Amino acid sequence: GETVRATLFPGDGIGPEIAESVKQVFNVAGVPIEWEEHYVGTEVDPRTESFLTWESLESVRRNKVGLKGPMATPIGKGHRSLNLTLRKELGLYANVRPCNSLPGYKTRYDDVNLVTIRENTEGEYSGLEHQVVRGVVESLKIITRQASLRVAEYAFHYAKANGRERVSAIHKANIMRKTDGLFLKCCREVAEKYPEIQYEEVIIDNCCMTLVKNPGLFDVLVMPNLYGDIISDLCAGLIGGLGLTPSCNIGEGGICLAEAVHGSAPDIAGKNLANPTALMLSAVMMLRHLQFNDKADRIHKAILQTIAEGKYRTADLGGKASTSEFTKAVCDHI
Amino acid sequence: GETVRATLFPGDGIGPEIAESVKQVFNVAGVPIEWEEHYVGTEVDPRTESFLTWESLESVRRNKVGLKGPMATPIGKGHRSLNLTLRKELGLYANVRPCNSLPGYKTRYDDVNLVTIRENTEGEYSGLEHQVVRGVVESLKIITRQASLRVAEYAFHYAKANGRERVSAIHKANIMRKTDGLFLKCCREVAEKYPEIQYEEVIIDNCCMTLVKNPGLFDVLVMPNLYGDIISDLCAGLIGGLGLTPSCNIGEGGICLAEAVHGSAPDIAGKNLANPTALMLSAVMMLRHLQFNDKADRIHKAILQTIAEGKYRTADLGGKASTSEFTKAVCDHI
Ligand SMILES: CC(C)[C@H](C(=O)O)[C@@H](O)C(=O)O
Ligand SMILES: CC(C)[C@H](C(=O)O)[C@@H](O)C(=O)O
Repeated sequence: GETVRATLFPGDGIGPEIAESVKQVFNVAGVPIEWEEHYVGTEVDPRTESFLTWESLESVRRNKVGLKGPMATPIGKGHRSLNLTLRKELGLYANVRPCNSLPGYKTRYDDVNLVTIRENTEGEYSGLEHQVVRGVVESLKIITRQASLRVAEYAFHYAKANGRERVSAIHKANIMRKTDGLFLKCCREVAEKYPEIQYEEVIIDNCCMTLVKNPGLFDVLVMPNLYGDIISDLCAGLIGGLGLTPSCNIGEGGICLAEAVHGSAPDIAGKNLANPTALMLSAVMMLRHLQFNDKADRIHKAILQTIAEGKYRTADLGGKASTSEFTKAVCDHI
Repeated sequence: GETVRATLFPGDGIGPEIAESVKQVFNVAGVPIEWEEHYVGTEVDPRTESFLTWESLESVRRNKVGLKGPMATPIGKGHRSLNLTLRKELGLYANVRPCNSLPGYKTRYDDVNLVTIRENTEGEYSGLEHQVVRGVVESLKIITRQASLRVAEYAFHYAKANGRERVSAIHKANIMRKTDGLFLKCCREVAEKYPEIQYEEVIIDNCCMTLVKNPGLFDVLVMPNLYGDIISDLCAGLIGGLGLTPSCNIGEGGICLAEAVHGSAPDIAGKNLANPTALMLSAVMMLRHLQFNDKADRIHKAILQTIAEGKYRTADLGGKASTSEFTKAVCDHI
């Protein structure tokens, strides 16, 4: 087989350690990937207006596939958030987060098996805000037909490609008739092209109530940016938290940037304590995107087995294993 | 003691039946309240631009205290939503929802003991929306210093008056720096005046994740309108749903309008099947507002005992009791 080049952003804090875990696992599984590693820069690159270098973005654009660890945006003015820069510059229009109860890792829920698909470029994240008069400020939520159709298309495509049965569009169109109304209209248009996939619309407050009562009722959920931000974290909580949930971002021109969405945990950085699960599972999503399905299956199974057995668990899951012990256990299962 | 006049909106669907339950319970407990009953009108009242009559709003303004059942807004154009009309016309600036696990009614959580306080007049509910160009629409989220201070004041006042220890302000100011930023600034100002109450700020996505993992970590939560809409329903879900959660709205000039926030369930209306718990518990909140604390305690205890015993539960809680059987059981416990 051929070797594929992929961009790797180890990120900061615990990022480099957990990226190392992924590299080890890929080596043991014989994944034919050659990494192009890029770190966050130490000064603002004027071409990206952020600490991300232009070269690192070019690398993703060229490879069309990448893996990203946590990145903490340095505090200060005159530059953009790292995560938002990536989304904007790479046109990462859909954030996809499968959420599945992990066998053997007990939470209050054992039947979560859903996927959230979040519009990732507009909505409440427009950045358009201003003071109208003293003491009165406004933020603009922007919804476009183009971005709504694009993410709806992706959601239905994803549902079909992954044998899912239903897409639920999450909204508050009873209040935001025009913006969320347009979002729903676009979802309906796309739904018509997928008669084999069920389609429903759920108001966000009701959705959150149902998620905590009976998450098993949901399958694929698609929604505007902020609702996706909220609901994807809620769903992560159902299965144990961001340390266990993979994610990947789909961007313009077929880019796939897989990403661990947890923080960089500077307090435990460099101490061999971090849980690499979310980054490993994200890497598995990247492999599936590349159609390396055998490798993806083997690695996925090894991760799940290691967690299910419960012998090697990191501290965040109540265990005593170090990052490298957990990683070795996963490698041994491959 | 003196008799107090209070406005009663039985509402529609199951509303009249569950309002009847409250009246019975109040009678048995000897609550000195005289109800002024108002139904939703059958045509639009031009003075309110909705199916709510001007007289009914005047009744609340005069009595300063009321109880409201579910109201379904008739479909069609040229009139305003009933709930939004009430909030606007009566200046109902804070929606207060205590959420407590009910002893004996099992959900996945048994340690919920928190109160959500939602700004109820502005934010994402401004109604200001327009199409910019074809396929591009925007909604305005408005945050004002006045409304933010007012709800923050109420939250801290509530925390102090109810022996609560901490207020958490929920926000997304890392993205909506100006609007949510102003909201936080107001909360901080008020927090300074209450050194005995702890104050923290929690980002909404993180808040939702923590709520589903460990709701016991929260005490009083205060937040802008839409976040309150979402989080209060999420919290209701933790304890069993909207059929079990009381709420009350605090309005200009000291108005207190208690309200069951569940739907009007037209499918079971008139069948003696509805669960009156949420309206009863809301009525208890109204009694506490009126400082009828003994009556409130007695009724509250009777409701909790009836549910805990589990002998008389309505269908929504998995039981077989009718509305009147449940109501009688509560009356018997008083
Ligand atoms: C860090 C923050 C800007 C980001 C967001 O709000 O999108 C995060 O919560 C996420 O979900 O990736
Ligand atoms: C019915 C709807 C307009 C309302 C809201 O969004 O505020 C409801 O969800 C609520 O929480 O009272």
